[in-house]
Amino acid sequence: MIEIKVVGHKIPDTDCTLAAIIFADYLNKKKIYSATPYIQGKLNKETEYLLELLNIATPEIKNSFPAGTKVALVDHNEDFQTLENIKELEVEYIIDHHKIDFASSAPLNIRMEPICSTCSILYKMYIEAGFEIDKKIGTMMLAGILSDSLLFKSATTTKVDVEIAEKLKEITGISDLEAFAMPMFDAKSDLGDIDPIDLIKYDYKEFDFNGTKAGVGTLETTNPNYALGRKDEILKAMQTIRDNDKLDFIFLSIVDIIGEKNISIVLDGADSKVASEVFDAEVKDNLIDLKRRLSRKKQVVPDLTEYFLNK
Amino acid sequence: MIEIKVVGHKIPDTDCTLAAIIFADYLNKKKIYSATPYIQGKLNKETEYLLELLNIATPEIKNSFPAGTKVALVDHNEDFQTLENIKELEVEYIIDHHKIDFASSAPLNIRMEPICSTCSILYKMYIEAGFEIDKKIGTMMLAGILSDSLLFKSATTTKVDVEIAEKLKEITGISDLEAFAMPMFDAKSDLGDIDPIDLIKYDYKEFDFNGTKAGVGTLETTNPNYALGRKDEILKAMQTIRDNDKLDFIFLSIVDIIGEKNISIVLDGADSKVASEVFDAEVKDNLIDLKRRLSRKKQVVPDLTEYFLNK
Repeated sequence: MIEIKVVGHKIPDTDCTLAAIIFADYLNKKKIYSATPYIQGKLNKETEYLLELLNIATPEIKNSFPAGTKVALVDHNEDFQTLENIKELEVEYIIDHHKIDFASSAPLNIRMEPICSTCSILYKMYIEAGFEIDKKIGTMMLAGILSDSLLFKSATTTKVDVEIAEKLKEITGISDLEAFAMPMFDAKSDLGDIDPIDLIKYDYKEFDFNGTKAGVGTLETTNPNYALGRKDEILKAMQTIRDNDKLDFIFLSIVDIIGEKNISIVLDGADSKVASEVFDAEVKDNLIDLKRRLSRKKQVVPDLTEYFLNK
Repeated sequence: MIEIKVVGHKIPDTDCTLAAIIFADYLNKKKIYSATPYIQGKLNKETEYLLELLNIATPEIKNSFPAGTKVALVDHNEDFQTLENIKELEVEYIIDHHKIDFASSAPLNIRMEPICSTCSILYKMYIEAGFEIDKKIGTMMLAGILSDSLLFKSATTTKVDVEIAEKLKEITGISDLEAFAMPMFDAKSDLGDIDPIDLIKYDYKEFDFNGTKAGVGTLETTNPNYALGRKDEILKAMQTIRDNDKLDFIFLSIVDIIGEKNISIVLDGADSKVASEVFDAEVKDNLIDLKRRLSRKKQVVPDLTEYFLNK
């Protein structure tokens, strides 16, 4: 049996963690692989809640593997999001739904679709392969879709994701999706006394916008007042991250999942000027109202990309 | 309906041309696309023979499209193999079986598998989508597989390609694959009074091996003596191409499809030294015996890549 390690992106979220567990199951079902899922960092509380609910062991954290190890990347493909020594590894599979920037020296399996959730792609792959989707795998798929689509409120949601969720309702017997999703979102919003740096980096990505190094965080929450109430601490932490990580720009969106609103936090000065120009809105007391822009991938990053490209 | 242009790689071969025609049909069957196949240059005689046999019009030659045009790339993905203004186009789909080096600014559909023929991947996609494979589409798929796998003799052939060809035998009623493939191979071998530069560039790719610019041609033929008998003309043409295209290395494999042998032609001097070191064989009268290395992708290019990486 061919050993293969299945791994999601850095700063793991629900979609990438469940996708790693599901795709390892898929590869094991193929009977030519012995596959194990991994994560590249500590889980957030939403994913922790789901693994506990489903009685699934937390995958081991790994940021590198011995040279020559065969790996499958799920929910990501770009270098800065993946394993430290990716160039020494043999990438056999990529299953993803983001933009691509990947180069290989040999042919490999790639399955990418511009839909909301990696778990939706995996659902299709199970069906195509004729593999059974049992209640546990189906519930994981459904959770991945609901998490990434914010219960279908995110602009990244497609007809395909909604149709697949309908099929998964039948398979899992979960008829009330809102009742299933709300405890997930509440768990994500239970930030306790989280350190403000961890809070910013909870769901955070670095980007290179035409030479401008930027960090963009998103806090999806049912309780936006938690973060907004700690604004001063957060601003101090944003400045620290900006300095330590040598960023040119830093940005944190507080996404209210229930109210479907995005209030983002920016530092004063240059960052504030950029944000107001990009999103055509005023920055007041370090806050900018991005209205219904719930999706970083679809409604925040593309505008930043375009702005810095034309600068 | 969304207009989309489906296009194979530069210096078109049978697999990429038939894949473009088949994938355009697939997209049209999806009923959200109005898809048209294109080629990026003059067809070889094998592909011409097949289009005539199947009574299919030759796709129009195009090397660029107006900015913003939606395109689907089949059987290739790298910049130097594709449309001139690819950066201005919207790539919606990539269906391929080569190594990848591609970057996008938005998510898109990618389907890649390390199997022999793009047409095998398309067969799987039709089955998965529940689309009918009629006799004409099935015959095209079969021809693509037989062409790329040299009737399963090439080292790139996988179990999957062979299994799909078996299914296609049923669909098409073509029971004797050898009888079907031989006229294709003979057509490819009918080089007439082809100019030696065209002969070298018949199935030819440029590579950047760690800074070494190389041109590697392959002539798959049922009649190797045609090319070997014109060796002096070919050597002269290789020198011309080497000079004009500012290459550091040039190489032409004459692959005898029936005898399953590869005799390659090299220029004297540095190229000859490289070839003998890479393939651990003597160069005699500008010829080097590569034995059963029938696949450029799997048995020639990887060794060249490794040699120049370690140089």
